[in-house]
Amino acid sequence: MRTSQTLVSTLKETPSDAEIVSHQLMLRAGMIRKLASGLYSWLPTGLRTLRKVENIVREEMNRAGAVETLMPVVQPADLWQETGRWDAMGPEMARLQDRHHRDFVLGPTHEEVITDIVRDEIKSYKQLPINLYQIQTKFRDERRPRFGVMRAREFTMKDAYSFHLDQDTMDATYDSMYAAYCRIIERMGLAYRPVLADTGAIGGSHSHEFQVLAQSGEDAIAYSTDSDYAANIEKAEALALGERGDATAEMTLVDTPNAKTIDELVEQHGIAIDKTVKTLIVKAAEELDAELVALMVRGDHELNEVKAENLPQVAKPLQFATEEEIRAAIGAGPGSLGPVDLKLPLIIDRSVETLNDFGAGANVDGKHYFNINWERDVALPEVADLRNVIEGDASPCGKGTLKIARGIEVGHIFQLGTKYSESMNATVLNEQGKATPLIMGCYGIGVSRIVAAAIEQNHDDRGIIWPDAIAPYQVSIIPMNMHKSHRVAELAEKLYAELTAAGIEVLFDDRKDRPGVMFADHELIGIPHNIVIGERGIDAGNIEYKSRRSGEKSDVAIDDVVSFIQQQLGQ
Amino acid sequence: MRTSQTLVSTLKETPSDAEIVSHQLMLRAGMIRKLASGLYSWLPTGLRTLRKVENIVREEMNRAGAVETLMPVVQPADLWQETGRWDAMGPEMARLQDRHHRDFVLGPTHEEVITDIVRDEIKSYKQLPINLYQIQTKFRDERRPRFGVMRAREFTMKDAYSFHLDQDTMDATYDSMYAAYCRIIERMGLAYRPVLADTGAIGGSHSHEFQVLAQSGEDAIAYSTDSDYAANIEKAEALALGERGDATAEMTLVDTPNAKTIDELVEQHGIAIDKTVKTLIVKAAEELDAELVALMVRGDHELNEVKAENLPQVAKPLQFATEEEIRAAIGAGPGSLGPVDLKLPLIIDRSVETLNDFGAGANVDGKHYFNINWERDVALPEVADLRNVIEGDASPCGKGTLKIARGIEVGHIFQLGTKYSESMNATVLNEQGKATPLIMGCYGIGVSRIVAAAIEQNHDDRGIIWPDAIAPYQVSIIPMNMHKSHRVAELAEKLYAELTAAGIEVLFDDRKDRPGVMFADHELIGIPHNIVIGERGIDAGNIEYKSRRSGEKSDVAIDDVVSFIQQQLGQ
Repeated sequence: MRTSQTLVSTLKETPSDAEIVSHQLMLRAGMIRKLASGLYSWLPTGLRTLRKVENIVREEMNRAGAVETLMPVVQPADLWQETGRWDAMGPEMARLQDRHHRDFVLGPTHEEVITDIVRDEIKSYKQLPINLYQIQTKFRDERRPRFGVMRAREFTMKDAYSFHLDQDTMDATYDSMYAAYCRIIERMGLAYRPVLADTGAIGGSHSHEFQVLAQSGEDAIAYSTDSDYAANIEKAEALALGERGDATAEMTLVDTPNAKTIDELVEQHGIAIDKTVKTLIVKAAEELDAELVALMVRGDHELNEVKAENLPQVAKPLQFATEEEIRAAIGAGPGSLGPVDLKLPLIIDRSVETLNDFGAGANVDGKHYFNINWERDVALPEVADLRNVIEGDASPCGKGTLKIARGIEVGHIFQLGTKYSESMNATVLNEQGKATPLIMGCYGIGVSRIVAAAIEQNHDDRGIIWPDAIAPYQVSIIPMNMHKSHRVAELAEKLYAELTAAGIEVLFDDRKDRPGVMFADHELIGIPHNIVIGERGIDAGNIEYKSRRSGEKSDVAIDDVVSFIQQQLGQ
Repeated sequence: MRTSQTLVSTLKETPSDAEIVSHQLMLRAGMIRKLASGLYSWLPTGLRTLRKVENIVREEMNRAGAVETLMPVVQPADLWQETGRWDAMGPEMARLQDRHHRDFVLGPTHEEVITDIVRDEIKSYKQLPINLYQIQTKFRDERRPRFGVMRAREFTMKDAYSFHLDQDTMDATYDSMYAAYCRIIERMGLAYRPVLADTGAIGGSHSHEFQVLAQSGEDAIAYSTDSDYAANIEKAEALALGERGDATAEMTLVDTPNAKTIDELVEQHGIAIDKTVKTLIVKAAEELDAELVALMVRGDHELNEVKAENLPQVAKPLQFATEEEIRAAIGAGPGSLGPVDLKLPLIIDRSVETLNDFGAGANVDGKHYFNINWERDVALPEVADLRNVIEGDASPCGKGTLKIARGIEVGHIFQLGTKYSESMNATVLNEQGKATPLIMGCYGIGVSRIVAAAIEQNHDDRGIIWPDAIAPYQVSIIPMNMHKSHRVAELAEKLYAELTAAGIEVLFDDRKDRPGVMFADHELIGIPHNIVIGERGIDAGNIEYKSRRSGEKSDVAIDDVVSFIQQQLGQ
């Protein structure tokens, strides 16, 4: 492609509303333009990368035996009413009425539609298992869309749905999708980790996220130093920390009028932070007698809100009690809570169970107990895994210790069980002729999000550094002053023709700009392999090759350019 | 692809709500399924054809120098308010509000969005001309969606928009799009005609439709027996029919109490139908003094409503007057109107101008004048081209006569002039540094509609007959009783592997069905080349080849199958 025949819309300035690097660089490199909040147009350079991501996803899904379909963006409300999600989904689901005042949604996902198709088309276990996917536009009306295509309202997603008579084939398809997702991200040249994920409201036993590693990632990932274990920190199990020590001192009531926080308590009273606890009060599940439930983690630990929400005693979604509610229930403020004489159901973290001689609020304002010991001073409450793991924790797999990395979720695979097939009555006849609800898996990839994640992982202060497989162009030709030098123009045209004929995707910069402007643009756009053509090189029979990633330059003989580039591309 | 690994959902019965052949066959062959009125899911077999159409369109657009982009489905209302189309578009445009109660539309087309992008990105004439396209989902809330994907509410369209400083480059791009559209439809193997089209409300001088020929087509096309001339009947010019003859009889007022229609007049009074006229009364344009305007065509001709609407004197859209309004204005009913003493502005068709001794209503109920002659009995009114051409009319190109064919519009190219660039202030600096509004062209192809049009043109009573280029699979392998015959199974597997390795797309029917069921399915789905494998053929060293289109069968030696198929595919 010649720059004169496409739209190379680079920007010198960083747009002020772009908060993260990928959003800034996608705007500056002319990949996308904002149409409205959370709505982006893909300009030619950006779309080339988006299509490459799409094609890798499509090829690997096909290779894994999934079959492509295409379902409408606009979906009738009645299917969503069947599963109860018409009411359960909040304002994130955009709704509209047609000219006859019938209700529709802009599909945020397609479980209902695919289950409707499958219940009509699949009648016998002989047609199973089947795995149907699509690459389609989704719409989710995010409360605060941001970060460009990383969290847009309209975006491109690959969503696959598999259907099974039995758990064995469900597990086999799940494993094949896991492997396909690994191949997809590896083919794109991205560093990533598959991690255990919380299944949350969807339920089901199995779920993995595929996280592209990047320091700017919103997700924290815990992984073992000595094994393959990796999990989203929401899910990573925190083991107990050794055995509980013996009581060595009497429990005492202490005046702590100025210690409203753990830090103040530690500073003012010389108590070690790992001998303190934090008590958090949340709303109780409806089934429970109490209105509130107390949760306790060690003073230096963080409550894991996903683990807390998954407790049967706790209301979903997790809601913290207000100070007013706490005072009404306990008679003391949030800075003075503790296990002794607490009038609420209490669940403590495993690392709290192993504490001896610890300090906690006395459930009286301005007072703490020191040297509390379980069973001696207060009965041992229910114990659960309630905290976020931290670096150095023992890995739950039994091997090594945990480290924490940051990642961007680009894929998520789930086993859904029979949630949708039961509510929508999707059954097949099994070998005995009995109607059996379908077991279902679902597998998503954020196609447009991958583009942004790849940039978060691959950039420097001059711009994007594309991996070869998803670069908008593999090679750029940058002729210096081609409009003044016939020799430069001739060689540029010749190499452009030869490389293109070899099936290599080239951006040929035929603008009349100064070389500095052209270099800056190609570095910003991030084309991996750059060929610079100048008079001086021609005199020596060479072009200058520059790698965008390493920055290394080398002279390449004019006759060797095509084979040299093929070598760089690993062909 | 093995049938066991995909979804081959054929139906024996024709669904009752499918009115046209392509809709019936797409449902029966398992290409699409209805989700709601005008909303269709594409099942695997259908999507394969849709993607092939998409890819041919993409390749030819790229070859013609157009550059691919992707714009959102959901568009903010403010752009539509800029061009006035927020108010002008009726309920066909679906509207929705986001969670913040801001107005959006589901894009029925993208002129506003692309003009918004171009006005920001294109600053100088040096960046012109540019032709940007996308292949994207569109939504038009048709009052009565029908005919499956032929007139769906959600559909896939290729829309391109070119921008120009001057008319010369506009014309050049228009011509290159015309040529690209011809190549696209030719590559798909479809019979078609590019025809002159009315530019209607969009204005502009140039417009062509690309019509796939099919007897069931909604559009009538007039074409010359002796030249390339072809036009939509809406647009085809009707020439005058020779010279006017001399008056031969006196005008007489005749009582015609029972002649309310032309047919009754002809039958009851022995007057030749081509010596009668029809007078039609329509609403006048606002600028006109009168409220109504009279239009007159010969008794055996039809008013062309598009030509009528394009008259400056006529209100847009065209509205016929009610009988009440006619009586109030003229004092007679619609069956008794004519040119003599008519109190309304009158415009007559060219073929009415050449009449002598003709009959028409007397503008008095139950009375007609016979033997009217222009200029002698009544002044000659304004003359215009107002009628539909009919077979046998002289071609307006000057060569041959017209024939009428029926077609399905699958593409439409327009020159838009500066309509959008002026209302949206999209200008570039010309060579003199002066801001100049962009000249714009637009070019649409109904990608999903082509699939249906291809079937309307290519089918028989057993099913679809795909042209090779857009068949879901090029070849089917139908092994007879493969589950009982090891030799049949082995040969089927071998040929499947060999053909697939040669890059040929094969549907391998590995179901345990009876041969008759399998044959019927493959004929219904329309796979062009069929390989039937049976014990008897193997004994003779052959397979049976059957062409779906010709129905011809031939024995092919087992070792020659791949080269034979390659030959059939023109490789």
